[in-house]
Amino acid sequence: MSENYNAMWTDLGLDLEAHDMLLNVLGQAYQDIYLAQENRPEGMGYFDFVMSEVHGLRIKELMDEKAIGRKIIGSYCVFVPEEIVLAANATLVGLCSGADFATEDVERLLPRNTCALIKSSFGFKVGKVCPYLESADMIVGENTCDGKKKSYETLGGMVDNLYVMDLPQVKSENGKALLKAEYQRFKAAVEDLTGVAVTAGSLKTAIQTVNAKRAALHRLFTLRRADPAPISGLDALLANQVFFYDNPERFTDSVNKICDELEKRIESKQGVFAEKTPRILVSGCPQAVPNWKLPMIVETAGAVIVGEESCVGERGTRNLTDESGETVEEMIDAIVDRYFMVDCAIFTPNPDRLAHIEQMVADYRADGVIHYGLQFCQPYLMESIPVETALEEKQIPCLRIETDYSMEDVGQLKTRVEAFVEQLR
Amino acid sequence: MSENYNAMWTDLGLDLEAHDMLLNVLGQAYQDIYLAQENRPEGMGYFDFVMSEVHGLRIKELMDEKAIGRKIIGSYCVFVPEEIVLAANATLVGLCSGADFATEDVERLLPRNTCALIKSSFGFKVGKVCPYLESADMIVGENTCDGKKKSYETLGGMVDNLYVMDLPQVKSENGKALLKAEYQRFKAAVEDLTGVAVTAGSLKTAIQTVNAKRAALHRLFTLRRADPAPISGLDALLANQVFFYDNPERFTDSVNKICDELEKRIESKQGVFAEKTPRILVSGCPQAVPNWKLPMIVETAGAVIVGEESCVGERGTRNLTDESGETVEEMIDAIVDRYFMVDCAIFTPNPDRLAHIEQMVADYRADGVIHYGLQFCQPYLMESIPVETALEEKQIPCLRIETDYSMEDVGQLKTRVEAFVEQLR
Repeated sequence: MSENYNAMWTDLGLDLEAHDMLLNVLGQAYQDIYLAQENRPEGMGYFDFVMSEVHGLRIKELMDEKAIGRKIIGSYCVFVPEEIVLAANATLVGLCSGADFATEDVERLLPRNTCALIKSSFGFKVGKVCPYLESADMIVGENTCDGKKKSYETLGGMVDNLYVMDLPQVKSENGKALLKAEYQRFKAAVEDLTGVAVTAGSLKTAIQTVNAKRAALHRLFTLRRADPAPISGLDALLANQVFFYDNPERFTDSVNKICDELEKRIESKQGVFAEKTPRILVSGCPQAVPNWKLPMIVETAGAVIVGEESCVGERGTRNLTDESGETVEEMIDAIVDRYFMVDCAIFTPNPDRLAHIEQMVADYRADGVIHYGLQFCQPYLMESIPVETALEEKQIPCLRIETDYSMEDVGQLKTRVEAFVEQLR
Repeated sequence: MSENYNAMWTDLGLDLEAHDMLLNVLGQAYQDIYLAQENRPEGMGYFDFVMSEVHGLRIKELMDEKAIGRKIIGSYCVFVPEEIVLAANATLVGLCSGADFATEDVERLLPRNTCALIKSSFGFKVGKVCPYLESADMIVGENTCDGKKKSYETLGGMVDNLYVMDLPQVKSENGKALLKAEYQRFKAAVEDLTGVAVTAGSLKTAIQTVNAKRAALHRLFTLRRADPAPISGLDALLANQVFFYDNPERFTDSVNKICDELEKRIESKQGVFAEKTPRILVSGCPQAVPNWKLPMIVETAGAVIVGEESCVGERGTRNLTDESGETVEEMIDAIVDRYFMVDCAIFTPNPDRLAHIEQMVADYRADGVIHYGLQFCQPYLMESIPVETALEEKQIPCLRIETDYSMEDVGQLKTRVEAFVEQLR
């Protein structure tokens, strides 16, 4: 950390001792997992810096925004439309949910059989170690899975600014009407929070800003089609993760700079791993910072991850919002159209996701798919069996993994992943 | 069984050997758990007969109905409106989901971390042992919990007549509009199946028929307020369970006859257990036939169950449908109003359920509440913690139980329940 942020963290109500412990663990993990990689693109230096300052400089920036009256909105899900947040002069940040914390306390509030991601989000609150959560003027929950939907009832009593967004379960006309009604209600709530009305001008700019972030990632995704892979799955995942935290324009620029560099690498056939390294697509549950467990295992087992079919990955960013609308109404419709395409497993049926997985396998020339399921995440675990069946019918090897954030099963997972990679050679 | 139904079962495609095994286990369990009880009301003889013929005579009745062109509709949930089914000249039956069957095969189709009720419904299909399922002309799934919602995607490939009903997650205006739209869509689907249009006359009669079933149970519920309890929790649960299977008019008559008898018992202070026996309310997940595990444990541990806050219990039946409508439209509105009140844990928030639990504790003079949660049932397990907290704040003892259909934990549960009952004395 470049300076001492203790005063800021104390003001935010963090538990300094616990928070220091967390940062130490995070820093060590980053060192061991990220900085230990070889042949990294130079542009990743930016993300190294971001991660070293993830609870420092970025929070200070948010506090500076707050000081001049801008509002911060925290979210746990890709269904919260950043376009609307930006257009109403607020900043959207993803909230911490990628590491176990205060688990014993959390299990007094939530059933033990709750997925690690939800438990983590509670742990960061109970343990007072998430400066994003504490700096947020509004926290947005959403009725996605049962676990999140029901846990927000408890979270509502722990924070004083929880807003819950309803979501459809079916991609029907009624479902789309519900999403639109909810986005309009959300727009009104954000406008109410910021005191700034969304205008056609501000919404258009916001749509362009968020699309530019996504487009930069699309460029990165496309470059990952090359063999040898010009960037590791770990580094690409980090870019997908930082997407949720960083200043949008700076993020876009940084990713594009990395892409410039990767293009040169590809031209000179330079990669992070040798040509013909087995290529893996990871599909399933989101992997939030610092949940780098699976890619760490895969990429130290002789394979490279070439794509993430995930909310923290292509599922979350692949679709752009149409920019041609001229009125707020037209642009809200475009936003609804865009988010309604997200093929989250909460929808039933959800055939688009399977089609997308197969498309990604082809696009990224993946040799196999690892389905990443968080234990107790019913929607993705339920989908994983038909996904595996469908892939195997197309002779695409698939390994279904069910895990959590603990390190207890790393040895066992390593063995399974190594055997799977061996099968792909 | 009063006659040999093998030909009928074979025609239905049942696996006779497996089905015989199931019936033997069921018969033995009924003998050990139900017939072993003392001081049972004579009227329970009817339900003993129903249970002895649950896959025999009742199925023959359904086959006879089918022979004259009536359709059979199977359901897994109290949100499927029987009023609409009856009004379109079809019969609604609850589908088997109360016992483990073909678990190994099921766990190839569903994640192991799926609740016993869902696994059971698949087991009865995979194992070919549910004559209700096999005789159904339409099977209705519903988007309640994630587990059911996603499992229907797989079930759809195993049966050729699955209809999936969407449901709201929030009790908002939009939520109610969705329920109404879905009930109208369901009405059209049932009319299409039977070729019989719902009329104001048929719908009014159907509403009265279903209300009469519910009213009979209400009468039974009210009689359970007496001390000594005039009927065991096991027997009352059975009535709640048979509600889903039996011919409606006969069910109503039979329950009313039992009530006549119970009134006399109460007058003469005759009970199934001694006065002052600790009184327990069971709240939580549904208990389908033959899932009698918890009441068996409770009522052999020196307590009596005086109420079930459950879909197979008051949650499912406490509200009547308003009978004053004169047009189909008015009556559909009344049906929507009625079902929208069901306080299932799939709704967020769901304060009515807690209020109902507290009301039931008062009404039935319960000394404590046992929260019955099926393992991996996220909605009810999530609610169980705030429910326990709220009850304990009101000095109402609460025991949270998480279990499945296996008998492995009976000893452990018995110990916990006995300790809880001791605390209530």
